[in-house]
Amino acid sequence: MEEKVVNAIQDEYPDDFAWCYGCGRLNEKGHHFRTGWQGEQTVTIYTPRPEHTAIPGFVYGGLLASLIDCHGTGSAALALHRKNGYEPGDGTAPPRFVTASLNVQFLKPTPQGVPLKAIGTVEEIHPKKWRVQTEVYANDVLCAQGEVIAVVMPKTFLPSS
Amino acid sequence: MEEKVVNAIQDEYPDDFAWCYGCGRLNEKGHHFRTGWQGEQTVTIYTPRPEHTAIPGFVYGGLLASLIDCHGTGSAALALHRKNGYEPGDGTAPPRFVTASLNVQFLKPTPQGVPLKAIGTVEEIHPKKWRVQTEVYANDVLCAQGEVIAVVMPKTFLPSS
Repeated sequence: MEEKVVNAIQDEYPDDFAWCYGCGRLNEKGHHFRTGWQGEQTVTIYTPRPEHTAIPGFVYGGLLASLIDCHGTGSAALALHRKNGYEPGDGTAPPRFVTASLNVQFLKPTPQGVPLKAIGTVEEIHPKKWRVQTEVYANDVLCAQGEVIAVVMPKTFLPSS
Repeated sequence: MEEKVVNAIQDEYPDDFAWCYGCGRLNEKGHHFRTGWQGEQTVTIYTPRPEHTAIPGFVYGGLLASLIDCHGTGSAALALHRKNGYEPGDGTAPPRFVTASLNVQFLKPTPQGVPLKAIGTVEEIHPKKWRVQTEVYANDVLCAQGEVIAVVMPKTFLPSS
């Protein structure tokens, strides 16, 4: 039985911010990463598509980087949203973060065909800047780890209309 | 007129190693990144697809990370191949690298709809481990920079057959 995130922060983003190729629910061709709380940590679960190959049998590193990236911004949004008194599912629009930096260590070849689980630990650097440490597991084996510095989306990203 | 890499290292990978979602010529659904020499530096040129969106109008960070990742392994392969006396296009199978670590700094929102140019500087750490510093430009504006530590593919990645 595959685990599933019930209340994901990406379900709550305003439509204008729901087009991300990694985690936007409105991007038909995207990955649709969904990130929620698991106790005091955050979790994203995703099974790569057959074409997300490095060498046949192993997952493409760029997909792992993408997972860690969107898991990072989603985790930061979850954390600031909770700090503001809200949880995903309660109908309040959450803050939207962008990635300032992304760092990934590829520890082991990551097998294809199984769900990947990204587990995040979030730390506030200041109210608009958060650090997310992420571990990615396949079959409970740690395959990659990463760090995202996420910042509240600057106005240069907002639609000009 | 769009610039194009003529002799790319990915054109020379043996078929078993040409399935990467980022740079494998045999992966029908992949990005087909192609990396060649530009003097003493390396270059990969790629125009993101319309769905590679962060916020409408701007390129998805995970795509930039993927570009820097494959550009890094391709650049390391070019450099070791040249050190061994070969150039892409001369018909000799090049070495194949994997990524040990990937670090990306997102400097500016990256506009969609224009070719991205990744420019790499390669440095040997030891014969099986190379550092590639990459800058990604859109319309000649530096939008992201990154570093890849690439290592010669270990045998655990080789097909078991």
